[in-house]
Amino acid sequence: MQNSKISNAIIRRLPRYRRYLGHLQNKGVKKISSNELSELLGYTASQIRQDLNTFGEFGQQGYGYEVDKLYKEINRILGLDREYKTVVVGAGKLGQAISNHNYFYKVGFTITALFDNNPAVIGTKVNDVEVHDVAELEDYVRDNNIDIGVICVQRDGAQSIADTLVAGGVKGIWNFAPIDLEIPDKVSLESVHLSDSLHALSFMIKHKIP
Amino acid sequence: MQNSKISNAIIRRLPRYRRYLGHLQNKGVKKISSNELSELLGYTASQIRQDLNTFGEFGQQGYGYEVDKLYKEINRILGLDREYKTVVVGAGKLGQAISNHNYFYKVGFTITALFDNNPAVIGTKVNDVEVHDVAELEDYVRDNNIDIGVICVQRDGAQSIADTLVAGGVKGIWNFAPIDLEIPDKVSLESVHLSDSLHALSFMIKHKIP
Repeated sequence: MQNSKISNAIIRRLPRYRRYLGHLQNKGVKKISSNELSELLGYTASQIRQDLNTFGEFGQQGYGYEVDKLYKEINRILGLDREYKTVVVGAGKLGQAISNHNYFYKVGFTITALFDNNPAVIGTKVNDVEVHDVAELEDYVRDNNIDIGVICVQRDGAQSIADTLVAGGVKGIWNFAPIDLEIPDKVSLESVHLSDSLHALSFMIKHKIP
Repeated sequence: MQNSKISNAIIRRLPRYRRYLGHLQNKGVKKISSNELSELLGYTASQIRQDLNTFGEFGQQGYGYEVDKLYKEINRILGLDREYKTVVVGAGKLGQAISNHNYFYKVGFTITALFDNNPAVIGTKVNDVEVHDVAELEDYVRDNNIDIGVICVQRDGAQSIADTLVAGGVKGIWNFAPIDLEIPDKVSLESVHLSDSLHALSFMIKHKIP
Protein backbone atom coordinates (compact mmCIF):
# COMPACT_ATOMS: atom_id res chain seq x y z
CA MET A 1 0.00 0.00 0.00
CA GLN A 2 1.42 3.36 -1.02
CA ASN A 3 0.88 6.19 1.41
CA SER A 4 0.18 8.59 -1.42
CA LYS A 5 -2.98 6.56 -2.02
CA ILE A 6 -4.34 7.32 1.44
CA SER A 7 -6.70 10.25 1.10
CA ASN A 8 -7.51 12.72 3.81
CA ALA A 9 -11.11 11.49 3.62
CA ILE A 10 -10.16 7.95 4.68
CA ILE A 11 -8.01 9.34 7.51
CA ARG A 12 -11.17 11.06 8.79
CA ARG A 13 -13.36 7.96 8.37
CA LEU A 14 -11.13 5.42 10.14
CA PRO A 15 -11.35 6.94 13.66
CA ARG A 16 -15.15 7.00 13.26
CA TYR A 17 -15.14 3.28 12.38
CA ARG A 18 -13.20 2.66 15.57
CA ARG A 19 -15.57 4.74 17.68
CA TYR A 20 -18.71 3.02 16.40
CA LEU A 21 -17.15 -0.44 16.67
CA GLY A 22 -16.30 0.42 20.27
CA HIS A 23 -19.97 1.27 20.89
CA LEU A 24 -21.02 -2.06 19.32
CA GLN A 25 -18.51 -3.94 21.50
CA ASN A 26 -19.88 -2.24 24.61
CA LYS A 27 -23.37 -3.35 23.59
CA GLY A 28 -22.15 -6.94 23.23
CA VAL A 29 -22.63 -7.08 19.45
CA LYS A 30 -20.50 -9.88 17.99
CA LYS A 31 -20.80 -9.49 14.25
CA ILE A 32 -21.97 -6.87 11.77
CA SER A 33 -22.45 -6.66 8.01
CA SER A 34 -21.11 -3.82 5.91
CA ASN A 35 -24.75 -2.87 5.23
CA GLU A 36 -25.42 -2.52 8.95
CA LEU A 37 -22.19 -0.56 9.39
CA SER A 38 -23.32 1.61 6.49
CA GLU A 39 -26.59 2.46 8.19
CA LEU A 40 -24.82 3.24 11.44
CA LEU A 41 -22.08 5.43 9.95
CA GLY A 42 -23.81 7.01 6.99
CA TYR A 43 -21.19 5.84 4.45
CA THR A 44 -22.14 3.45 1.65
CA ALA A 45 -21.44 -0.25 2.21
CA SER A 46 -19.14 -0.31 -0.81
CA GLN A 47 -17.22 2.67 0.59
CA ILE A 48 -16.72 0.80 3.86
CA ARG A 49 -15.61 -2.41 2.13
CA GLN A 50 -13.23 -0.42 -0.05
CA ASP A 51 -11.77 1.46 2.94
CA LEU A 52 -11.14 -1.73 4.90
CA ASN A 53 -9.77 -3.61 1.88
CA THR A 54 -7.08 -0.94 1.64
CA PHE A 55 -5.54 -2.44 4.77
CA GLY A 56 -6.29 -6.17 4.47
CA GLU A 57 -9.01 -8.80 4.30
CA PHE A 58 -11.17 -8.51 7.38
CA GLY A 59 -14.67 -9.53 6.31
CA GLN A 60 -16.09 -12.80 5.10
CA GLN A 61 -18.43 -12.92 2.10
CA GLY A 62 -21.99 -13.45 3.35
CA TYR A 63 -21.00 -13.26 7.00
CA GLY A 64 -19.79 -9.74 7.60
CA TYR A 65 -17.26 -8.61 10.18
CA GLU A 66 -16.45 -9.92 13.64
CA VAL A 67 -16.74 -6.79 15.78
CA ASP A 68 -13.96 -7.66 18.28
CA LYS A 69 -11.53 -8.61 15.55
CA LEU A 70 -12.30 -5.62 13.36
CA TYR A 71 -11.99 -3.25 16.33
CA LYS A 72 -8.58 -4.70 17.14
CA GLU A 73 -7.48 -4.48 13.51
CA ILE A 74 -8.61 -0.86 13.23
CA ASN A 75 -6.69 -0.03 16.38
CA ARG A 76 -3.61 -1.53 14.73
CA ILE A 77 -4.25 0.36 11.47
CA LEU A 78 -4.64 3.59 13.44
CA GLY A 79 -1.34 2.96 15.20
CA LEU A 80 -3.04 2.53 18.58
CA ASP A 81 -1.17 -0.70 19.39
CA ARG A 82 1.78 1.19 20.89
CA GLU A 83 2.68 3.97 23.32
CA TYR A 84 3.33 7.56 22.24
CA LYS A 85 5.47 9.67 24.53
CA THR A 86 3.82 13.06 24.47
CA VAL A 87 4.53 16.58 25.73
CA VAL A 88 2.03 19.43 26.04
CA VAL A 89 3.33 22.94 25.34
CA GLY A 90 1.29 25.66 27.00
CA ALA A 91 0.01 24.97 30.54
CA GLY A 92 -2.99 27.31 30.29
CA LYS A 93 -6.59 26.12 30.61
CA LEU A 94 -6.55 24.20 27.33
CA GLY A 95 -3.19 22.54 28.04
CA GLN A 96 -4.50 21.58 31.47
CA ALA A 97 -7.74 20.23 30.00
CA ILE A 98 -5.78 18.04 27.57
CA SER A 99 -3.41 16.87 30.32
CA ASN A 100 -6.32 15.97 32.60
CA HIS A 101 -8.02 13.91 29.90
CA ASN A 102 -7.34 10.39 31.16
CA TYR A 103 -8.72 8.85 27.98
CA PHE A 104 -5.55 9.86 26.17
CA TYR A 105 -3.42 7.89 28.65
CA LYS A 106 -5.75 4.92 28.35
CA VAL A 107 -5.17 4.58 24.61
CA GLY A 108 -1.39 4.99 24.87
CA PHE A 109 -0.64 8.71 24.72
CA THR A 110 1.50 9.21 27.81
CA ILE A 111 2.06 12.85 28.69
CA THR A 112 5.51 12.98 30.30
CA ALA A 113 5.86 16.75 30.68
CA LEU A 114 4.19 20.11 30.15
CA PHE A 115 6.04 23.27 29.12
CA ASP A 116 5.32 26.93 29.68
CA ASN A 117 7.17 30.26 29.70
CA ASN A 118 5.38 31.64 32.75
CA PRO A 119 7.68 31.49 35.84
CA ALA A 120 4.57 31.28 38.05
CA VAL A 121 3.55 27.89 36.63
CA ILE A 122 6.98 26.37 35.89
CA GLY A 123 7.60 23.73 38.55
CA THR A 124 3.90 23.21 39.33
CA LYS A 125 2.13 19.97 38.46
CA VAL A 126 -0.93 19.19 36.31
CA ASN A 127 -2.45 15.74 36.83
CA ASP A 128 0.86 14.74 38.52
CA VAL A 129 2.95 15.85 35.52
CA GLU A 130 5.50 18.63 35.99
CA VAL A 131 5.48 21.92 34.07
CA HIS A 132 8.98 22.64 32.69
CA ASP A 133 10.54 25.82 31.34
CA VAL A 134 9.86 26.03 27.60
CA ALA A 135 13.55 26.95 27.15
CA GLU A 136 14.30 23.27 27.86
CA LEU A 137 11.82 21.95 25.27
CA GLU A 138 14.18 20.95 22.45
CA ASP A 139 16.64 19.13 24.72
CA TYR A 140 13.84 17.39 26.61
CA VAL A 141 12.20 16.16 23.39
CA ARG A 142 15.52 14.87 22.06
CA ASP A 143 16.74 13.28 25.33
CA ASN A 144 13.43 11.55 26.03
CA ASN A 145 12.56 10.42 22.49
CA ILE A 146 9.25 12.25 22.55
CA ASP A 147 6.91 11.15 19.77
CA ILE A 148 4.21 13.84 19.87
CA GLY A 149 4.08 17.51 20.80
CA VAL A 150 0.70 19.07 21.60
CA ILE A 151 0.64 22.82 20.94
CA CYS A 152 -1.71 24.69 23.30
CA VAL A 153 -0.13 28.15 23.08
CA GLN A 154 -1.52 31.32 21.50
CA ARG A 155 -1.40 31.84 17.78
CA ASP A 156 1.68 34.07 17.82
CA GLY A 157 4.02 31.65 19.57
CA ALA A 158 2.85 28.51 17.81
CA GLN A 159 5.15 28.36 14.76
CA SER A 160 8.26 28.86 16.89
CA ILE A 161 7.13 26.06 19.26
CA ALA A 162 6.48 23.83 16.25
CA ASP A 163 10.01 24.55 14.92
CA THR A 164 11.47 23.62 18.32
CA LEU A 165 9.48 20.38 18.49
CA VAL A 166 10.63 19.46 14.97
CA ALA A 167 14.25 20.29 15.85
CA GLY A 168 13.96 18.00 18.88
CA GLY A 169 12.74 15.18 16.65
CA VAL A 170 9.02 14.64 17.27
CA LYS A 171 7.17 12.44 14.78
CA GLY A 172 3.87 14.27 15.07
CA ILE A 173 2.35 17.57 16.16
CA TRP A 174 -1.21 17.98 17.49
CA ASN A 175 -1.92 21.68 17.07
CA PHE A 176 -4.69 23.63 18.81
CA ALA A 177 -3.40 27.11 17.90
CA PRO A 178 -5.53 28.84 15.24
CA ILE A 179 -2.78 28.94 12.63
CA ASP A 180 -1.69 26.82 9.66
CA LEU A 181 1.76 25.65 10.75
CA GLU A 182 4.63 25.04 8.32
CA ILE A 183 6.14 21.68 9.14
CA PRO A 184 8.59 19.50 7.16
CA ASP A 185 7.03 16.46 5.45
CA LYS A 186 8.77 13.98 7.75
CA VAL A 187 6.58 15.17 10.65
CA SER A 188 2.82 14.48 10.74
CA LEU A 189 0.58 17.43 11.56
CA GLU A 190 -2.98 17.37 12.83
CA SER A 191 -4.60 20.72 13.60
CA VAL A 192 -7.81 21.09 15.58
CA HIS A 193 -9.58 24.16 14.22
CA LEU A 194 -12.21 24.78 16.86
CA SER A 195 -13.43 27.85 14.97
CA ASP A 196 -14.20 25.70 11.90
CA SER A 197 -16.32 23.47 14.09
CA LEU A 198 -18.17 26.42 15.62
CA HIS A 199 -18.75 27.96 12.18
CA ALA A 200 -20.13 24.63 10.95
CA LEU A 201 -22.58 24.82 13.85
CA SER A 202 -23.71 28.37 13.04
CA PHE A 203 -24.12 27.27 9.42
CA MET A 204 -26.29 24.33 10.51
CA ILE A 205 -28.37 26.60 12.75
CA LYS A 206 -28.87 29.14 9.94
CA HIS A 207 -29.85 26.48 7.40
CA LYS A 208 -31.83 24.39 9.92
CA ILE A 209 -29.69 21.27 9.51
CA PRO A 210 -29.92 18.80 12.45
CA MET B 1 -31.96 25.70 -2.09
CA GLN B 2 -33.21 22.67 -0.21
CA ASN B 3 -31.40 21.89 3.01
CA SER B 4 -31.51 18.17 2.26
CA LYS B 5 -29.14 18.95 -0.60
CA ILE B 6 -26.45 20.30 1.73
CA SER B 7 -24.02 17.48 2.38
CA ASN B 8 -21.89 17.12 5.46
CA ALA B 9 -18.85 17.47 3.19
CA ILE B 10 -19.80 20.98 2.10
CA ILE B 11 -20.49 21.95 5.74
CA ARG B 12 -16.87 20.96 6.46
CA ARG B 13 -15.47 22.82 3.43
CA LEU B 14 -17.19 26.18 3.94
CA PRO B 15 -15.42 27.12 7.22
CA ARG B 16 -12.10 26.32 5.52
CA TYR B 17 -12.97 28.64 2.63
CA ARG B 18 -13.60 31.35 5.20
CA ARG B 19 -10.32 30.69 7.03
CA TYR B 20 -8.20 30.81 3.88
CA LEU B 21 -10.00 33.88 2.54
CA GLY B 22 -9.26 35.54 5.87
CA HIS B 23 -5.54 34.73 5.39
CA LEU B 24 -5.67 36.22 1.87
CA GLN B 25 -7.38 39.36 3.19
CA ASN B 26 -4.70 39.75 5.85
CA LYS B 27 -2.05 39.50 3.14
CA GLY B 28 -3.80 42.24 1.16
CA VAL B 29 -4.83 39.97 -1.74
CA LYS B 30 -7.72 41.57 -3.64
CA LYS B 31 -8.84 38.90 -6.10
CA ILE B 32 -8.36 35.19 -6.64
CA SER B 33 -9.36 32.66 -9.30
CA SER B 34 -11.00 29.34 -8.49
CA ASN B 35 -7.79 27.68 -9.76
CA GLU B 36 -5.70 29.60 -7.25
CA LEU B 37 -8.21 28.80 -4.49
CA SER B 38 -8.00 25.18 -5.60
CA GLU B 39 -4.23 25.09 -5.16
CA LEU B 40 -4.49 26.72 -1.75
CA LEU B 41 -7.25 24.51 -0.39
CA GLY B 42 -6.59 21.20 -2.12
CA TYR B 43 -10.12 20.94 -3.57
CA THR B 44 -10.67 20.95 -7.35
CA ALA B 45 -11.59 24.26 -8.96
CA SER B 46 -14.87 22.79 -10.21
CA GLN B 47 -15.68 21.59 -6.68
CA ILE B 48 -15.14 25.12 -5.37
CA ARG B 49 -17.26 26.71 -8.12
CA GLN B 50 -19.99 24.15 -7.49
CA ASP B 51 -19.92 24.74 -3.71
CA LEU B 52 -20.18 28.50 -4.07
CA ASN B 53 -22.86 28.31 -6.78
CA THR B 54 -25.04 26.45 -4.28
CA PHE B 55 -25.43 29.77 -2.45
CA GLY B 56 -25.39 32.36 -5.21
CA GLU B 57 -23.34 33.92 -8.01
CA PHE B 58 -20.14 35.29 -6.54
CA GLY B 59 -17.50 34.92 -9.24
CA GLN B 60 -17.12 36.52 -12.62
CA GLN B 61 -16.15 34.44 -15.66
CA GLY B 62 -12.50 35.11 -16.48
CA TYR B 63 -11.97 37.36 -13.47
CA GLY B 64 -12.37 35.17 -10.42
CA TYR B 65 -13.53 36.24 -7.00
CA GLU B 66 -13.11 39.48 -5.11
CA VAL B 67 -11.58 38.35 -1.83
CA ASP B 68 -13.27 40.93 0.44
CA LYS B 69 -16.67 40.34 -1.10
CA LEU B 70 -16.41 36.56 -1.06
CA TYR B 71 -15.20 36.58 2.56
CA LYS B 72 -18.21 38.68 3.55
CA GLU B 73 -20.58 36.44 1.58
CA ILE B 74 -19.17 33.30 3.18
CA ASN B 75 -19.59 34.87 6.61
CA ARG B 76 -23.23 35.45 5.73
CA ILE B 77 -23.65 31.90 4.40
CA LEU B 78 -22.07 30.54 7.60
CA GLY B 79 -24.50 32.57 9.69
CA LEU B 80 -21.70 34.73 11.09
CA ASP B 81 -23.55 38.00 10.39
CA ARG B 82 -25.41 37.89 13.72
CA GLU B 83 -24.92 37.35 17.45
CA TYR B 84 -25.42 33.98 19.15
CA LYS B 85 -26.21 34.04 22.86
CA THR B 86 -24.26 31.15 24.26
CA VAL B 87 -23.93 29.28 27.57
CA VAL B 88 -21.13 26.92 28.58
CA VAL B 89 -22.09 23.95 30.74
CA GLY B 90 -19.20 22.56 32.77
CA ALA B 91 -16.79 25.07 34.30
CA GLY B 92 -13.81 22.69 34.41
CA LYS B 93 -10.57 23.32 32.52
CA LEU B 94 -12.15 22.80 29.11
CA GLY B 95 -15.16 24.99 29.87
CA GLN B 96 -12.78 27.66 31.13
CA ALA B 97 -10.58 27.36 28.04
CA ILE B 98 -13.61 27.83 25.77
CA SER B 99 -14.88 30.75 27.86
CA ASN B 100 -11.47 32.44 27.75
CA HIS B 101 -11.23 32.14 23.98
CA ASN B 102 -11.87 35.73 22.94
CA TYR B 103 -12.05 34.79 19.28
CA PHE B 104 -15.50 33.34 19.87
CA TYR B 105 -16.76 36.68 21.17
CA LYS B 106 -15.15 38.47 18.26
CA VAL B 107 -17.17 36.52 15.69
CA GLY B 108 -20.45 36.91 17.58
CA PHE B 109 -20.70 34.04 20.05
CA THR B 110 -21.39 35.87 23.30
CA ILE B 111 -21.07 33.67 26.36
CA THR B 112 -23.57 35.04 28.87
CA ALA B 113 -23.22 32.38 31.59
CA LEU B 114 -21.42 29.21 32.65
CA PHE B 115 -23.07 26.39 34.59
CA ASP B 116 -21.69 23.78 36.96
CA ASN B 117 -22.93 21.46 39.71
CA ASN B 118 -19.91 22.01 41.99
CA PRO B 119 -20.85 24.35 44.90
CA ALA B 120 -17.19 25.44 45.09
CA VAL B 121 -17.28 27.07 41.65
CA ILE B 122 -20.91 28.26 41.52
CA GLY B 123 -20.81 32.05 41.98
CA THR B 124 -17.21 32.42 40.78
CA LYS B 125 -16.37 34.13 37.49
CA VAL B 126 -14.53 32.99 34.36
CA ASN B 127 -13.42 35.78 32.04
CA ASP B 128 -15.93 38.05 33.87
CA VAL B 129 -18.82 35.64 33.26
CA GLU B 130 -20.58 34.13 36.28
CA VAL B 131 -20.85 30.40 36.96
CA HIS B 132 -24.47 29.47 37.80
CA ASP B 133 -25.96 26.39 39.41
CA VAL B 134 -26.75 23.84 36.70
CA ALA B 135 -30.17 23.36 38.37
CA GLU B 136 -31.09 26.76 36.88
CA LEU B 137 -30.00 25.86 33.35
CA GLU B 138 -33.37 25.23 31.70
CA ASP B 139 -35.00 28.37 33.09
CA TYR B 140 -31.97 30.50 32.25
CA VAL B 141 -31.89 29.25 28.66
CA ARG B 142 -35.61 29.91 28.22
CA ASP B 143 -35.68 33.30 29.95
CA ASN B 144 -32.64 34.62 28.10
CA ASN B 145 -33.36 33.21 24.65
CA ILE B 146 -30.07 31.36 24.55
CA ASP B 147 -29.14 30.17 21.04
CA ILE B 148 -26.27 27.77 21.73
CA GLY B 149 -25.27 25.48 24.58
CA VAL B 150 -21.67 24.29 24.79
CA ILE B 151 -21.34 20.95 26.61
CA CYS B 152 -18.04 20.63 28.49
CA VAL B 153 -19.07 18.02 31.06
CA GLN B 154 -17.97 14.40 31.40
CA ARG B 155 -19.43 11.71 29.19
CA ASP B 156 -21.92 10.44 31.78
CA GLY B 157 -23.72 13.72 32.39
CA ALA B 158 -23.75 14.92 28.79
CA GLN B 159 -27.06 13.48 27.50
CA SER B 160 -29.00 14.84 30.45
CA ILE B 161 -27.47 18.30 29.94
CA ALA B 162 -28.34 18.10 26.24
CA ASP B 163 -31.95 17.22 27.12
CA THR B 164 -32.11 20.23 29.45
CA LEU B 165 -30.69 22.58 26.80
CA VAL B 166 -33.22 21.28 24.27
CA ALA B 167 -36.07 21.69 26.78
CA GLY B 168 -34.95 25.29 27.35
CA GLY B 169 -35.09 25.95 23.61
CA VAL B 170 -31.53 26.22 22.27
CA LYS B 171 -31.11 26.15 18.49
CA GLY B 172 -27.73 24.44 18.54
CA ILE B 173 -25.45 22.34 20.74
CA TRP B 174 -21.66 22.33 20.55
CA ASN B 175 -20.65 19.11 22.27
CA PHE B 176 -17.18 18.27 23.60
CA ALA B 177 -18.20 15.18 25.61
CA PRO B 178 -17.04 11.91 24.02
CA ILE B 179 -20.54 10.61 23.34
CA ASP B 180 -22.99 10.58 20.41
CA LEU B 181 -25.87 12.63 21.75
CA GLU B 182 -29.49 12.04 20.81
CA ILE B 183 -31.05 15.35 19.89
CA PRO B 184 -34.35 16.17 18.13
CA ASP B 185 -33.99 17.26 14.50
CA LYS B 186 -35.05 20.84 15.22
CA VAL B 187 -31.77 21.40 17.10
CA SER B 188 -28.41 21.48 15.30
CA LEU B 189 -25.64 19.37 16.82
CA GLU B 190 -21.90 19.70 16.29
CA SER B 191 -19.67 17.34 18.26
CA VAL B 192 -15.92 17.83 18.60
CA HIS B 193 -14.41 14.37 18.89
CA LEU B 194 -10.88 15.13 20.09
CA SER B 195 -10.07 11.41 20.20
CA ASP B 196 -10.86 11.08 16.47
CA SER B 197 -8.38 13.87 15.79
CA LEU B 198 -5.70 12.26 17.96
CA HIS B 199 -6.26 8.87 16.30
CA ALA B 200 -5.97 10.51 12.88
CA LEU B 201 -2.58 11.81 14.05
CA SER B 202 -1.36 8.39 15.24
CA PHE B 203 -2.52 6.96 11.90
CA MET B 204 -0.54 9.61 10.01
CA ILE B 205 2.54 8.94 12.15
CA LYS B 206 2.26 5.18 11.58
CA HIS B 207 1.81 5.53 7.81
CA LYS B 208 4.29 8.43 7.51
CA ILE B 209 1.73 10.90 6.14
CA PRO B 210 2.71 14.60 6.54
